[in-house]
Amino acid sequence: MRTAPDMPSDLEISRRAVLRPMAEIARAAGIPEEALEPYGRHKAKVDPLLVPPRSTRGKVVLVTAMSPTPAGEGKSTVTVGLGDALAKAGVNTVIALREPSLGPVLGLKGGAAGGGYSQVVPMEDINLHFTGDFHAITTANNALTALLDNHIYQGNLLGIDPRRITFRRVMDMNDRSLRDIVIGLGGPTQGTPRQDGFDITVASEIMAVFCLARDLADLKARLARITVGYTYDRRPVTVADLGIEGALTLLLKDAIKPNLVQTLAGTPALVHGGPFANIAHGCNSVIATELARNVADVVVTEAGFGADLGAEKYMDIKARAADVAPDAVVLVATIRALKMHGGVPRTELGRPDPAALEAGTANLGRHIGNIRKFGVEPVVAVNRFPTDTQDELDWLLRWCRTQGVQAAAADVWAQGGGGPGGDELAALVLAALQEPVDFHHLYPLELPVAEKIRTVAREIYGADDVEFSPQALRRLAEITAGGWDSLPVCMAKTQYSFSDDAALLGAPTGFTLHVRDLILKTGAGFVVALTGAVMTMPGLPKTPAALAMDVSPDGTPQGLS
Amino acid sequence: MRTAPDMPSDLEISRRAVLRPMAEIARAAGIPEEALEPYGRHKAKVDPLLVPPRSTRGKVVLVTAMSPTPAGEGKSTVTVGLGDALAKAGVNTVIALREPSLGPVLGLKGGAAGGGYSQVVPMEDINLHFTGDFHAITTANNALTALLDNHIYQGNLLGIDPRRITFRRVMDMNDRSLRDIVIGLGGPTQGTPRQDGFDITVASEIMAVFCLARDLADLKARLARITVGYTYDRRPVTVADLGIEGALTLLLKDAIKPNLVQTLAGTPALVHGGPFANIAHGCNSVIATELARNVADVVVTEAGFGADLGAEKYMDIKARAADVAPDAVVLVATIRALKMHGGVPRTELGRPDPAALEAGTANLGRHIGNIRKFGVEPVVAVNRFPTDTQDELDWLLRWCRTQGVQAAAADVWAQGGGGPGGDELAALVLAALQEPVDFHHLYPLELPVAEKIRTVAREIYGADDVEFSPQALRRLAEITAGGWDSLPVCMAKTQYSFSDDAALLGAPTGFTLHVRDLILKTGAGFVVALTGAVMTMPGLPKTPAALAMDVSPDGTPQGLS
Repeated sequence: MRTAPDMPSDLEISRRAVLRPMAEIARAAGIPEEALEPYGRHKAKVDPLLVPPRSTRGKVVLVTAMSPTPAGEGKSTVTVGLGDALAKAGVNTVIALREPSLGPVLGLKGGAAGGGYSQVVPMEDINLHFTGDFHAITTANNALTALLDNHIYQGNLLGIDPRRITFRRVMDMNDRSLRDIVIGLGGPTQGTPRQDGFDITVASEIMAVFCLARDLADLKARLARITVGYTYDRRPVTVADLGIEGALTLLLKDAIKPNLVQTLAGTPALVHGGPFANIAHGCNSVIATELARNVADVVVTEAGFGADLGAEKYMDIKARAADVAPDAVVLVATIRALKMHGGVPRTELGRPDPAALEAGTANLGRHIGNIRKFGVEPVVAVNRFPTDTQDELDWLLRWCRTQGVQAAAADVWAQGGGGPGGDELAALVLAALQEPVDFHHLYPLELPVAEKIRTVAREIYGADDVEFSPQALRRLAEITAGGWDSLPVCMAKTQYSFSDDAALLGAPTGFTLHVRDLILKTGAGFVVALTGAVMTMPGLPKTPAALAMDVSPDGTPQGLS
Repeated sequence: MRTAPDMPSDLEISRRAVLRPMAEIARAAGIPEEALEPYGRHKAKVDPLLVPPRSTRGKVVLVTAMSPTPAGEGKSTVTVGLGDALAKAGVNTVIALREPSLGPVLGLKGGAAGGGYSQVVPMEDINLHFTGDFHAITTANNALTALLDNHIYQGNLLGIDPRRITFRRVMDMNDRSLRDIVIGLGGPTQGTPRQDGFDITVASEIMAVFCLARDLADLKARLARITVGYTYDRRPVTVADLGIEGALTLLLKDAIKPNLVQTLAGTPALVHGGPFANIAHGCNSVIATELARNVADVVVTEAGFGADLGAEKYMDIKARAADVAPDAVVLVATIRALKMHGGVPRTELGRPDPAALEAGTANLGRHIGNIRKFGVEPVVAVNRFPTDTQDELDWLLRWCRTQGVQAAAADVWAQGGGGPGGDELAALVLAALQEPVDFHHLYPLELPVAEKIRTVAREIYGADDVEFSPQALRRLAEITAGGWDSLPVCMAKTQYSFSDDAALLGAPTGFTLHVRDLILKTGAGFVVALTGAVMTMPGLPKTPAALAMDVSPDGTPQGLS
């Protein structure tokens, strides 16, 4: 969590806020009250089937960022602040965000609901169990694995090879001890011993499916298509083969309804779904974005990680699953991150360093060029930090003009989007929304998977070439043979660098991207390309955030940040 | 699920019901609207801190049963039907029930929210995720284990012996493959390898703690006392030693508020918590029962399994943790169960067999005598089944009179408590509530644990003696040495027999109860005595109920029963 002198913590700000009744928020969002299902006093689910279709559809503003650094870029904070600023300007705005995962909340990073005076609230609910969506997804995932192992135990009619089960159990927890486990021990009445492991819930394919499904019927069809493993004679086994897509969909029937909350300034926000941005596509649910388009004139949404991952996946995966292509893109940058990309160590970021700042713009510049490749002209939002000097900000805004790109400093963390801090950014975004957009995907689906990966690597990452491991080459052959070559690709790469080496900051060139393995996600409908090690079950740090958490006898939470 | 010709399924009945607004149900229950936190349209949580204390406290009717048989006794159905009948008679009544576990719903038994026309509704919500309480308990349990294994991984300052960790992970699922597992494999960065296993969530000590805590402060104090394992030098390690009771309490801060729903007849019902009735005490939360006493004139609640387990634990564990001693006890019996205890095989229960019926009364008779040992005079409720003949019912009611016990046939499954089927039972219960009660526990807490077990075995089960295994004797010595001898005992025994042999039906005598092991639950505050094998993680059957489950595109559930 970002802090500053005289600034209360995110939790304090959230707790002190006077929240508006949900019926009023729904009214502001254009959601009829009969579509509202309250969850506690300040959360509600919205049934999209009870929201009448509108003839006009809202425009989509996608908020993405330059390559992140450990210093933090505040993408969610800018998303919330921009939404507030647009609402303040009289624009009928709805924000669409991902739900935070509980594991990291207990571990290192506190919450993920924006920050400072640009938060969605109540942050203490959103960061804990919220409306139970992740618990429902965890349950559906683990019902699948229990039914799968039970099928094997009860006679294994399908002939599933216990050594070739690819679908893992999940838990919404940072628990490294569950990464590699052996299950089914204890003798013949306790199941079939096999190697297994747990991922964190946001890494579940069911989470990705949940976020790409357009409705319950599509959800069920996608769940049915999930590959869970292979038979002894190497044929894929799907959820449909097990006959359990109905039960899994039933377990998700309420979770699939988007959650409505509000920002500190009272702007409606749909917070729904939250797949990983590495092995999945890192965006909130299609259903929430579609609902937002159906009720608001402008939808402000975000994509995970930097634009090389989040925005590319938004454009090539999410915007193919549904009609949600962006009408404008906001690229979040910070003076601190630019200096870090220019070579300044993390501990020195508070000091001006014009040369490093200039060097760091190479990173931002490549992202600007990348967004233009999708036919959209980005707007740069410089998310202001207390250590930024006016000289640095002025220089950066001038640099943006030399690139022909509109840019504004945004001070929404300290001032809130309801204050003046987001006005200039909002004005630039509104102007951008008046411009014609010639949106197109980066690659056509007809391109073979290997060529899609090469296209992303060269066009977006700036790689010279792609090297596939022998394992990846075998998988490519299987994908082609199985008729899956027309799926989009989902790149699992470090967020810190354009390359697959997290230490290569700035805008590296002359490198080769190494694809270690490919995972076919037949339910989500994409092929994951693994570059480097991808952690699908995080661990807890030496001093977990949980140690500072508490609740007073009247129920007031403490220690969330 | 019980079925009969011309009778719709439980799910159909629930779906067709026209439910009353929650504000109206709260008003009927005497709960002020400001204490209500809606969860969807027909569920709400109630904040007990916002319900003003009342000078009079409602009387408690405990519904328990004769020794259960696989034929089913319908204890929850009678509890709901009796509550409805009392409400219909103009008595301000609130029902208090346990929440069902999702694992068995997906497995064998469908739901657990009553049946026929005596159900709490919406059953499809109550039987799936409901308000997320079990998910919160699962999360708190697994946060504890993740933080525990992380402590060991990060240097193990407390010197915890990984071979002596007693607190297991949980999942609300029937998943036999997780009973015996090895975790922490994969090398030094993945944790410390050790044997482990998952229990079903209802077996978590956190569930027991949750259901015995009087408020958030008591919950936190009990969580802090939970023993999670032992150090290399055999000293116990508690949650307080790990410093995480604050975080665990925070994760339960909303779950701890009782859930308000309604019966088909519109009677308010608090459905909250659901610990196992073998290794835990098998009753809904103390907080819900206390809340019900604070708002209603009569509270109808139930205890798990037969009276030898459920009622004994209610009296000796729950009624010591809080002021909830019963003012009347209803003992549910069925003609079918009596015949089975009289020697009739399950497939023949539909045929009259007067001799077997008479023989089976030995079981009911011992339960009647047992309830009297607590100073309460029971009322027998004969839960009517379609195969019962009038002759059988008349004979049984006459037999009850010869025992000096009030008895009525109840036909609440087919007629609903709102119909005439529960009137006679309600009248008998109201009469019983006018009688003086001299409630007392079965044993004083000062008695050593071994003597408490002997007392329960002799007085309630009819055992000649108790035999402790060498392991149990070692544990008894540890319990005495650790100063825990003043805790009540929680017997883990088969529900099907008074003895520890499930095949010994009726009222067996001349047997010895074998105590295999003892488990000290320092958070819940009882000592579990294990007799025979106790399954803490069920498995799925050959054809799980999940295979028949589905949901239509508009969200209508199918296949729940």
